[in-house]
Amino acid sequence: MSKQYKPSTPKGTRDFLPTVVQRRNYIFDTIKTVFEHYGYQPIETPAMENLETLTGKYGEEGDRLIFKILARGEKLNKALADFNQTNLTEEALRYDLTVPFARFVVQHQNDLAFPFRRYQIQPVWRADRPQKGRYREFFQCDADVIGTDSLRCEVEIVQMLDNVFTKLGLPVEIKINNRKLLTALAAYVGEADKLIPLTIAIDKLDKMPLDKVLADLDNQGFSAEAQTKLKTVLEAARDLTDSAALMDKMEQVFAGNADGEKGLEELRYVFSKVKTLGLETSKLRFDMSLARGLNYYTGAIFEVVPRTDEQVGSISGGGRYDDLTGVFGMPGMSGVGISFGADRIYDMLEARDGFPKNETAGTELLFVNFGETEADFCHELLGSIRKAGIRAELYPDASKMKKQMKYANDKQIKFVAMVGEDEMAADSVTLKNMESGEQELIGKNELISKLKML
Amino acid sequence: MSKQYKPSTPKGTRDFLPTVVQRRNYIFDTIKTVFEHYGYQPIETPAMENLETLTGKYGEEGDRLIFKILARGEKLNKALADFNQTNLTEEALRYDLTVPFARFVVQHQNDLAFPFRRYQIQPVWRADRPQKGRYREFFQCDADVIGTDSLRCEVEIVQMLDNVFTKLGLPVEIKINNRKLLTALAAYVGEADKLIPLTIAIDKLDKMPLDKVLADLDNQGFSAEAQTKLKTVLEAARDLTDSAALMDKMEQVFAGNADGEKGLEELRYVFSKVKTLGLETSKLRFDMSLARGLNYYTGAIFEVVPRTDEQVGSISGGGRYDDLTGVFGMPGMSGVGISFGADRIYDMLEARDGFPKNETAGTELLFVNFGETEADFCHELLGSIRKAGIRAELYPDASKMKKQMKYANDKQIKFVAMVGEDEMAADSVTLKNMESGEQELIGKNELISKLKML
Repeated sequence: MSKQYKPSTPKGTRDFLPTVVQRRNYIFDTIKTVFEHYGYQPIETPAMENLETLTGKYGEEGDRLIFKILARGEKLNKALADFNQTNLTEEALRYDLTVPFARFVVQHQNDLAFPFRRYQIQPVWRADRPQKGRYREFFQCDADVIGTDSLRCEVEIVQMLDNVFTKLGLPVEIKINNRKLLTALAAYVGEADKLIPLTIAIDKLDKMPLDKVLADLDNQGFSAEAQTKLKTVLEAARDLTDSAALMDKMEQVFAGNADGEKGLEELRYVFSKVKTLGLETSKLRFDMSLARGLNYYTGAIFEVVPRTDEQVGSISGGGRYDDLTGVFGMPGMSGVGISFGADRIYDMLEARDGFPKNETAGTELLFVNFGETEADFCHELLGSIRKAGIRAELYPDASKMKKQMKYANDKQIKFVAMVGEDEMAADSVTLKNMESGEQELIGKNELISKLKML
Repeated sequence: MSKQYKPSTPKGTRDFLPTVVQRRNYIFDTIKTVFEHYGYQPIETPAMENLETLTGKYGEEGDRLIFKILARGEKLNKALADFNQTNLTEEALRYDLTVPFARFVVQHQNDLAFPFRRYQIQPVWRADRPQKGRYREFFQCDADVIGTDSLRCEVEIVQMLDNVFTKLGLPVEIKINNRKLLTALAAYVGEADKLIPLTIAIDKLDKMPLDKVLADLDNQGFSAEAQTKLKTVLEAARDLTDSAALMDKMEQVFAGNADGEKGLEELRYVFSKVKTLGLETSKLRFDMSLARGLNYYTGAIFEVVPRTDEQVGSISGGGRYDDLTGVFGMPGMSGVGISFGADRIYDMLEARDGFPKNETAGTELLFVNFGETEADFCHELLGSIRKAGIRAELYPDASKMKKQMKYANDKQIKFVAMVGEDEMAADSVTLKNMESGEQELIGKNELISKLKML
């Protein structure tokens, strides 16, 4: 290696320093705890999947963005000798948690109890062009229940979202729509065969004015009449912020359309249960302009946005699907899932200083090292302190006091204990609160109870 | 994809089902808690590293076993057009946690408080031939303190090992040696320039009889006199199971040899402190035949084996190094680290039924679904039950009782609550203990305190 080599991580990937890991774990643990309260259990899948498991599942762009593993040894040599690009790789890094989950359910179907509630918090990799807030390695936090079409699951998804964001101290709006209403809408405007371009167009409404979206549809061959009808419906959807009023309005629009009526019935069910059960801090809102790009959704779709003025976009999303596992040979498995965007949640909590100090703290107590005899006294004390569950350390060297105090400061350690000849003679320690600067002499037997109180 | 496609994970990789994840997390959490009690803090590095960060760090075999990422787009096309194999890849999956840690320390040196205590629990990948207990993806759990040569860190490593294995209920022997003694041994037998083959040979002593190891050294050019001297020392090392007696013996052997005297002084320091501080369930033993293959160790080396008759080999290991970060341009950083083998610990705990039931459990309570009205009653109860921290669910469909009970059994749920017309009229639930078969009628307000008691 050349001397000029400057250590770095690959483009679009990150190291996480201790404070960041602790804060990220606080987010993950909060989400996990809620998932588990609802009966969801963790699974893990390998970072690599067979290439054939992944290809063709994420569209053409997705195929291009999958990280592939280079073949090794004989296989690599043969592929190169044969000019056979295909054989250069057999495995790839997982691109999301949904396809591996589908593969997992099919592969282990005989070992799972259905309806199967799983959660999964693991990194995924995409060879996207890195930009602010978009990384090539990032974590997804998914929960899915598969093997039931009960709408109670949708109700519980809303409850889980409310629980998580209440615990995190983030007031949110949970937007809900139903894919059946989009199908109905395409039929209503006379373009039933153009559901996918319609979905993609509606998905852009939060970033683009309605007129521009309609102009795009004009280019895609939507008739003038279709555009006029769409404009009326989407304007009503935008202006009617009251969900009940919007549902009434849509009932008129979709009268006689089976998809529309079914979609509204499902929506009304979720709203009615959520109303009875109550939400803590979140607000549920019916949003006709919510589309979500993924084509496998067939029923309810969700998206969560902060209720503050922050422009962070959606911080969670999900929906109901009817056939996630069909592609792996197990058709007809209905399910519903939700995914949390940990990076955006992190940024929001950081911006509002929303991480609880205690749950993301490192060492709580540092013993200053004044020399071998004093260190022995402290080292012996450490045993019972650690046993009491207190994170504590002894500075390993008898370095200058200033250096040791700087270490305590840098590591944001709240308490520093000093033991010199006087303290040893009195079987005590001098305890300094690094935040207030106060210090006091405490008998060594009182130290633990004192620390637990503070 | 062809219909015949049978979903599977890539060779040497594994899916983890819920019970296994929960049990693995129990091991990781136990280790993490101990690490944190000693002031170690978590870091995370990306799954991928720049290829140049990894190559040349693990020897020739290591270079061959690294999983490389295939280049994409233009770069790939150019590499193929140029017949340039080197440019087929720029990134690779991490092979261990030590090299990424060294890269991390150098890269972030201005943001770290030294001595820096970090732990890291992440998967690594090696394209080894898979066999029983050896996987291509597996987790490493490492803790290191870097930036101090204080021997107190070695003492604390022994204490941490004792804490972890005591908590896990696994009585172990902690073997310790010192690389300086191996240097001294090479000099003592007159083969100071053959330290590396000597280390490799000694490392085989737990799998091979002494005579065979000596024969191997004969082939490597060790003199007859060297072999005789080695035989005497290694036989004494094998037969003197008392650490103090073995240290006395080695003191005679290495008298006047600076490395030997320093190594023994370091060993005596660790033994004396450990004796004062005490170990809970582990035993510390000086083992002259412990060598550990890695060349970067320079002082104490550790290895942990179960004290039972299980033939699982070592379940933890580590040591002191003087220059981990020099290769990345930051020389002279001394440190000491330890690594836990989670897969072997898992197998041992499983074999002895050693996983605590409570800490690895999923759902605790299932409400049977008898229909919409009853389900509404249960769904409302669930709110306060989950808020009380109890993992509970309602079966989402009003399926046949038998199917729902099978689900509870398959998921090993301990309590099932049944609510029919009678229970609703009495504002109660019938609670069934699935282990004992007992059931009783409980007022809905008593349910939580009842469950918390059980």
